[in-house]
Amino acid sequence: MKDFWIAPSILAADFARLGEEAEQVLAAGADVIHIDVMDNHYVPNLTMGPQFCKALRSHGITAPIDVHLMVTPVDGMIQAFAEAGADYISIHPEATLHLDRSVQLIKDLGCKAGLVFNPASTLDAAQYVLDRLDLILLMSVNPGFGGQRFIPQVLPKIAAARKLIDDSGRNIRLEVDGGVNLETIGQVAAAGADMFVAGTAIFAQDNYRETISALRRQIADAVTNRT
Amino acid sequence: MKDFWIAPSILAADFARLGEEAEQVLAAGADVIHIDVMDNHYVPNLTMGPQFCKALRSHGITAPIDVHLMVTPVDGMIQAFAEAGADYISIHPEATLHLDRSVQLIKDLGCKAGLVFNPASTLDAAQYVLDRLDLILLMSVNPGFGGQRFIPQVLPKIAAARKLIDDSGRNIRLEVDGGVNLETIGQVAAAGADMFVAGTAIFAQDNYRETISALRRQIADAVTNRT
Amino acid sequence: MKDFWIAPSILAADFARLGEEAEQVLAAGADVIHIDVMDNHYVPNLTMGPQFCKALRSHGITAPIDVHLMVTPVDGMIQAFAEAGADYISIHPEATLHLDRSVQLIKDLGCKAGLVFNPASTLDAAQYVLDRLDLILLMSVNPGFGGQRFIPQVLPKIAAARKLIDDSGRNIRLEVDGGVNLETIGQVAAAGADMFVAGTAIFAQDNYRETISALRRQIADAVTNRT
Amino acid sequence: MKDFWIAPSILAADFARLGEEAEQVLAAGADVIHIDVMDNHYVPNLTMGPQFCKALRSHGITAPIDVHLMVTPVDGMIQAFAEAGADYISIHPEATLHLDRSVQLIKDLGCKAGLVFNPASTLDAAQYVLDRLDLILLMSVNPGFGGQRFIPQVLPKIAAARKLIDDSGRNIRLEVDGGVNLETIGQVAAAGADMFVAGTAIFAQDNYRETISALRRQIADAVTNRT
Amino acid sequence: MKDFWIAPSILAADFARLGEEAEQVLAAGADVIHIDVMDNHYVPNLTMGPQFCKALRSHGITAPIDVHLMVTPVDGMIQAFAEAGADYISIHPEATLHLDRSVQLIKDLGCKAGLVFNPASTLDAAQYVLDRLDLILLMSVNPGFGGQRFIPQVLPKIAAARKLIDDSGRNIRLEVDGGVNLETIGQVAAAGADMFVAGTAIFAQDNYRETISALRRQIADAVTNRT
Amino acid sequence: MKDFWIAPSILAADFARLGEEAEQVLAAGADVIHIDVMDNHYVPNLTMGPQFCKALRSHGITAPIDVHLMVTPVDGMIQAFAEAGADYISIHPEATLHLDRSVQLIKDLGCKAGLVFNPASTLDAAQYVLDRLDLILLMSVNPGFGGQRFIPQVLPKIAAARKLIDDSGRNIRLEVDGGVNLETIGQVAAAGADMFVAGTAIFAQDNYRETISALRRQIADAVTNRT
Repeated sequence: MKDFWIAPSILAADFARLGEEAEQVLAAGADVIHIDVMDNHYVPNLTMGPQFCKALRSHGITAPIDVHLMVTPVDGMIQAFAEAGADYISIHPEATLHLDRSVQLIKDLGCKAGLVFNPASTLDAAQYVLDRLDLILLMSVNPGFGGQRFIPQVLPKIAAARKLIDDSGRNIRLEVDGGVNLETIGQVAAAGADMFVAGTAIFAQDNYRETISALRRQIADAVTNRT
Repeated sequence: MKDFWIAPSILAADFARLGEEAEQVLAAGADVIHIDVMDNHYVPNLTMGPQFCKALRSHGITAPIDVHLMVTPVDGMIQAFAEAGADYISIHPEATLHLDRSVQLIKDLGCKAGLVFNPASTLDAAQYVLDRLDLILLMSVNPGFGGQRFIPQVLPKIAAARKLIDDSGRNIRLEVDGGVNLETIGQVAAAGADMFVAGTAIFAQDNYRETISALRRQIADAVTNRT
Repeated sequence: MKDFWIAPSILAADFARLGEEAEQVLAAGADVIHIDVMDNHYVPNLTMGPQFCKALRSHGITAPIDVHLMVTPVDGMIQAFAEAGADYISIHPEATLHLDRSVQLIKDLGCKAGLVFNPASTLDAAQYVLDRLDLILLMSVNPGFGGQRFIPQVLPKIAAARKLIDDSGRNIRLEVDGGVNLETIGQVAAAGADMFVAGTAIFAQDNYRETISALRRQIADAVTNRT
Repeated sequence: MKDFWIAPSILAADFARLGEEAEQVLAAGADVIHIDVMDNHYVPNLTMGPQFCKALRSHGITAPIDVHLMVTPVDGMIQAFAEAGADYISIHPEATLHLDRSVQLIKDLGCKAGLVFNPASTLDAAQYVLDRLDLILLMSVNPGFGGQRFIPQVLPKIAAARKLIDDSGRNIRLEVDGGVNLETIGQVAAAGADMFVAGTAIFAQDNYRETISALRRQIADAVTNRT
Repeated sequence: MKDFWIAPSILAADFARLGEEAEQVLAAGADVIHIDVMDNHYVPNLTMGPQFCKALRSHGITAPIDVHLMVTPVDGMIQAFAEAGADYISIHPEATLHLDRSVQLIKDLGCKAGLVFNPASTLDAAQYVLDRLDLILLMSVNPGFGGQRFIPQVLPKIAAARKLIDDSGRNIRLEVDGGVNLETIGQVAAAGADMFVAGTAIFAQDNYRETISALRRQIADAVTNRT
Repeated sequence: MKDFWIAPSILAADFARLGEEAEQVLAAGADVIHIDVMDNHYVPNLTMGPQFCKALRSHGITAPIDVHLMVTPVDGMIQAFAEAGADYISIHPEATLHLDRSVQLIKDLGCKAGLVFNPASTLDAAQYVLDRLDLILLMSVNPGFGGQRFIPQVLPKIAAARKLIDDSGRNIRLEVDGGVNLETIGQVAAAGADMFVAGTAIFAQDNYRETISALRRQIADAVTNRT
């Protein structure tokens, strides 16, 4: 059976005490910390840079840090986040003219490489870099802000990405980000995802442990029903 | 006698616990919290967005928050930081085609308006907005990174800005940012500044209170000698 | 049987009396008014902004206004044209990084959403927004100027788009723009289009009514022969 | 005594019948037709391109057409408007990296060259092209929209530009644009302007002739009092 | 049997005596001269402009000159290189918003048109311009620098392009550029290429004639084995 | 007495044999080799990159190489040309947001720093970096192409720059570029320049030695008459 990962997005955490928030959510059962990096150019919002990633490491966080770069250009930020301690670095194909170079750069820096697809983007851009990918991230909202509603049109794309990964025979995570919560996570898991970004769905709750457990139960139910 | 303000830049603080860092530095005698906002376009680095300003407010910080926007375009970020609780918002003249509009926007949103000058920039851009400025910020390093060395060529520009402000008869703060520490703050004060950004000079020290007191003594000595 | 729409592009009308031109062409049998919006960035020409759309409405034009945005970025102009009274707003996938967001914005503003394809563009970008589209517009010249020659390589793409629409079961107009005139409109209709932009083919003629009738006869003949 | 020119901006006219509007306002005593060209990049609005200028000429307008280019880049639009029949073409120094080349291009195309200054811009950019200028245009609102309020801080800049022109001994028009109406035109004239853009101040009135006459009386009074 | 072309890239030649280098490599059996044009925007390097192409012609070079434009925008450079004497001009689909127009421009100027695909790019962009292409160029390194290693993932794309060309029935060269040398050229030829860019593989050798002969032998062996 | 330098621009040389051209012009009495680097973005032309500078060094050229960067952004090209063997690197203030950083970068790399002013640019940008400049370069044509006519309005700016340099007490070369030839070089020298870029004025002549000697005689005459 597959392993399912919960990836809380600290974009929804209390920014005044990110270290503590990260510790608590990991203690509550999260698998990785997800960082949403926005530069006010690729998306209409500005969030956080490499220093936050580095501070989490200095704070003692050893769990995988999963960085989603919503920036353009990307190569400088790939370098900065690799140095800051990131494990996964994911980029958008529209954000770079030289996708092969950027994917290779992530790998050469010792990180795991992810490719992110906006809601309207086809999966075509994965074709010639699939053999080096460790992660495919499908956006189920338009990136730029937290707290948006899940776009159901993404469900068939999750299934298509699942098939692409299975056909490749490679060990590639399939992550979904946007509007994932107790109501939607089941569908997302049933469609084939195995890594789930959740922001307000976790951090807006009082009890992180219960919330994460509830999310896992939804996943388990959905996957059981699927098989 | 003039009032002198110490403005610690949280770019040098521990990003994992920004709320606590801000509290401590204010308790230690700082006057405002300085936020350096970089977008990886106006400067080659990405730091933090409006959510951090908002989180400091939610965390209970009531001191003035002094936001330095190193971003382009600026108008969207002005709006976002005003909503997030900023008091001072400072912008670079090269970062906007419509400087009067941006300055007016800051004022219309109820904030205090600052104009920032890079090390090589002349003060000319202040001429037709001076009557609405609350702050002039002179960079004594090239913006983009913390921990750089003070550029001494800026000293005569501090004196020129002092004169510009005094001649205007208006109540405008003269802030200096970049390499300000125990060794340089005296010169900066003597040249006419009355607001001092310090990053590593404060946050890299063990005792914030002693450090801030020491900085204040340097200012006092320099100003006494001046008169 | 399908309904066929003639959409005169006022880019070819007398700009000194656009209101009158629009009235006359509608009185002569046109179905909608087509507005070509160019910003000198997405295309190398500058034409007309939202005020013209608004002026047509104030002038009493009640027919559908069909706006083709050849601009980048698009979201601000979508908003402006929706407020100015547009019915259909069509955008190019290359003109926005967040196509799903822009399509959704058009719908949220109460307008009908179109997606436009340049002569060399494949139809791939329609895949994940097809369920919200009301219009697919195929360019049969490179956008930027009126009066160009029809590119015959677009004919198989019209057929492909026809199939895509029919397979979707949705009510989506298939519009063609560029070099459509008495000589070419038959082929365009035969290939599957049901909405035809004509600029100089109508406005450069003395008698709009006769011209539009002649265009309709060509369509009818072509469609009859097809079946 | 100097000659004073009233320059109605057709941005405030009825866009559905621009030819008629231009005719009427000229018959009512206006001296030139002013066209505001915006490209949604130099300013956040899109208005009208060269075809409108050409249409006014075809419509029989023989008065000088005074084009204010709020676009970037500018050289292509200079060429297009010169071909479309413009007399005066004015550009912003921030909109071109090669100001001398652009000014020279306007002159080489047989047009009169203007330089436009935003509210916060100093007059410095005029220094090395002053000998080829025919017009200096001072913005008294931030360009982008009609109907804004006059910025009084521009008055001393009008006086400074007046002196610059008089010292040069050259025949250069001093035009002011933004919030010019019956209440403000007197101050503007008194400060030294001799060409006045008015948009809603004219086109929002029922009687263009009376309005223009009233504006002229205010100018005359202000100038008489000045001497 | 097909004709195979060796295309030495003068990016690897001695730039102090390009004319002589071009003469020698042609005398040694090369078929065309390949020019890599980089603008420091489409790729992170700046190389050479149209004057070099013109100088080769003035120097007496009559062999085909094969220009690879790694620039954006492209239309101005297409024109400049056509005037400078280029035979083949190849462009990247990501470098122009209006690919059909740019391809048509190359043809209208009397040159042969090529389309270039980066390592991660799919062949989709060829679909609607294939009927006018004379060359498909597949990058087997990320463009920007000479001396990089061949990316083996491109081999199946070479085969796919070969099929695309054969199915079209058109006379289209299939060129491969990047890390092509004695060790890799056999695979490249076996996969279906018939035109081979070689830079350091030729110019870093003492004897151009022997090197080119050795490359040809590798091609011949590979093709023989294929059949 | 001052030392006068002749700086032939190899933009006007035979690009097929640049090494030989550089040797010959230096043997004929030239003092430095001037390289015009254009990127098709800062100026509308593309010329040559760092490899040419490096090739001249490999070819045995030991004279100072004087690089004029007409590119944006500049910092990457500064680095590349410093590594390629440049002595002087000159940049435009409009081409970088952080002029102090770029000037300092040139110095830190062991090169001499120049600041270039377009024909319409004032000298203001020199104010806060003058203490680190080794060269001021005044353009007397609009950069982008060789063979243009000298703009006489630049003469008073040469005198102003001369005074700025003399007042500084620093050892700064004053170079002039654009339309400098036998007819204009006298005026340029009389106005205060001590370094003269000449392109076609030298390379379009048969005898480089006689031409350079004639240019020197014009300088000597002009300077003698001045004193």
